[in-house]
Amino acid sequence: MTPQPVFNATTLADPLPLDSGEVLHGVSIAYETYGELAADKGNAILLCHALTGDQFVASKHPVTGKPGWWERMVGPGKPIDTNRFHVICANVIGSCMGSTGPAAIGPDGKPYAMSFPVITIRDMVRGLAGLLDQMEIERLHAVVGGSMGGMQALSMAANFPERAGRVLAIATTARHSAQNIAFHEVGRQSIMADPNWAEGDYYASGKTPDAGLAVARMAAHITYLSEEGLTEKFGRRLQDRSEKTFGFDADFQIESYLRYQGSGFTRRFDANSYLYITRAMDYFDIAEEHGGLLADAFAGTTARFCLVSFDSDWLYPTAESRHVVHALNAAGAPVSFVELSAPFGHDSFLLDVPALDRVVRGFLDD
Amino acid sequence: MTPQPVFNATTLADPLPLDSGEVLHGVSIAYETYGELAADKGNAILLCHALTGDQFVASKHPVTGKPGWWERMVGPGKPIDTNRFHVICANVIGSCMGSTGPAAIGPDGKPYAMSFPVITIRDMVRGLAGLLDQMEIERLHAVVGGSMGGMQALSMAANFPERAGRVLAIATTARHSAQNIAFHEVGRQSIMADPNWAEGDYYASGKTPDAGLAVARMAAHITYLSEEGLTEKFGRRLQDRSEKTFGFDADFQIESYLRYQGSGFTRRFDANSYLYITRAMDYFDIAEEHGGLLADAFAGTTARFCLVSFDSDWLYPTAESRHVVHALNAAGAPVSFVELSAPFGHDSFLLDVPALDRVVRGFLDD
Repeated sequence: MTPQPVFNATTLADPLPLDSGEVLHGVSIAYETYGELAADKGNAILLCHALTGDQFVASKHPVTGKPGWWERMVGPGKPIDTNRFHVICANVIGSCMGSTGPAAIGPDGKPYAMSFPVITIRDMVRGLAGLLDQMEIERLHAVVGGSMGGMQALSMAANFPERAGRVLAIATTARHSAQNIAFHEVGRQSIMADPNWAEGDYYASGKTPDAGLAVARMAAHITYLSEEGLTEKFGRRLQDRSEKTFGFDADFQIESYLRYQGSGFTRRFDANSYLYITRAMDYFDIAEEHGGLLADAFAGTTARFCLVSFDSDWLYPTAESRHVVHALNAAGAPVSFVELSAPFGHDSFLLDVPALDRVVRGFLDD
Repeated sequence: MTPQPVFNATTLADPLPLDSGEVLHGVSIAYETYGELAADKGNAILLCHALTGDQFVASKHPVTGKPGWWERMVGPGKPIDTNRFHVICANVIGSCMGSTGPAAIGPDGKPYAMSFPVITIRDMVRGLAGLLDQMEIERLHAVVGGSMGGMQALSMAANFPERAGRVLAIATTARHSAQNIAFHEVGRQSIMADPNWAEGDYYASGKTPDAGLAVARMAAHITYLSEEGLTEKFGRRLQDRSEKTFGFDADFQIESYLRYQGSGFTRRFDANSYLYITRAMDYFDIAEEHGGLLADAFAGTTARFCLVSFDSDWLYPTAESRHVVHALNAAGAPVSFVELSAPFGHDSFLLDVPALDRVVRGFLDD
């Protein structure tokens, strides 16, 4: 990971109590906003990012120089129309783009590293609510997110039921399955097996656990794509060669692609953040937080909901969205649900799926 | 990996030509047999093992002390009845249980390590055919295998069409998909990222790349199970604790299980063998070997075929078996095909699926 640029950030005035029982003091929340906030503050949309996402939803990434991760969705005249809405996107706590996380300086003047407390999705949402408090935004027009962003949106509805008028949760789940946990555990073990990880205490060494983090990313990346999509995009095609080399180079395009994804990721992401955020996702189970019944979690909601799943998403398959929809039905909350057909697997929520654009625009506008 | 026991093995009299163009000399093939060979040698069944399998199909594993990997299927009175059949199971070349592989001593008196040539599934089958030659078994009653074993069975039918009267290929494919390659590449990168791997030259160091190999095994192991099976077996249940620890220990049973699978595997398997065998599987594409059309690969076959898939197998899903069946149909070969319902994913072929027992017994007997 390269040195961090300076981020727009605010420091929460109040300490942040965590599900673990610990308390974080002086929490920094880095965020970006797009579009004007109305005088009555009624047009704010909170956009929640995914595991390796960040606040740069519609602006150039300061480390990679790449466009924002949801530029197709957020901007003037786009489905999340910044001519109408004030869009807020904040880096979650535990992450590494300016919000307080394991790479941040702790009370002893050194990076937290593994002394950073284990956090939950609800803790991330507490941080976001703290940001909204400082912005004096009591009620959002909507909270929106895909994947882990959708988890935050659902968690906000369950834990801060007055805070949002609309909840749009895309390609997500109300709980991590055994298979979800399993893939994350592979990633964590890969990072922790890298000698450069050094029990997480690598910030001063100049040697980061890039090899372990790259393998973690490669494993996760497969789960973001569909088998069909991989076959269509790569198949068994060779990379820059006409014959197999009978060696261990990246003969196949899919190998080359995964290696590129893995190594690129290490240049923008902190390995300890990967540990903490995957842990938060694995701990995520809204029903468990609320006595075991998901419907009970949404008993106090004041929001309208929209759930979207993709037929090729095997990470958070349609059945998980349907499970949420049934709970919202049982809680008497207004909810619409659509399974969209798209070939890109879980990543469909980030990619060119015009039907998603229409759903997002329609739900936020009407 | 612990020191190897002494194996029953034969040294092939002839050099073994490989698909890469290289030639292996003095090839050792370690094998086990069960049941008597008939005087006319007409009752031999060759059983081909999977990626991390071995010749100990129905006898105690000499390293782990565990029962053979297919004891439920092979033995007196069992579906592959050793009262009737002479069952031969050999360790494939490239592996590490007595057959020539990267841990074996090469021509320079040192372990081959990464100077071992990259092999293919067809090369493994050439080694098995060499073993059959030395046993003076011209034609097998059947060749049988699941997963990579099924690849060998299909490859034998395509490349040694006179060698087997029946071909039983279970939970397998005629080609590795992009997703198959992707998961294997994650495993290889994990091994090669382990500093103990030392470019494969670790046999004398006493330090083996166990951490990398364990992560490789964990990632692969997820692909052997179904999402539903994982949920049923583990769900979100905690391991030996009533509350989450808010740490990075194995809170969840699935984490504990995967770690156990990973570390146990390193005690019985050589990391370089894992590299070579996964590479062989990724290179596997029977059609490509035979001019691009799978039906052409089976043009000369003299065998009857039986293909079996499992509805919960997402590693080699039913569509892959059906693809083989269509090619066999086009080649005019007699073939039966059944998709069995079982909850265990790809591993179903190894587990308690009585319907599979019936299919195997019926196909071999009739």
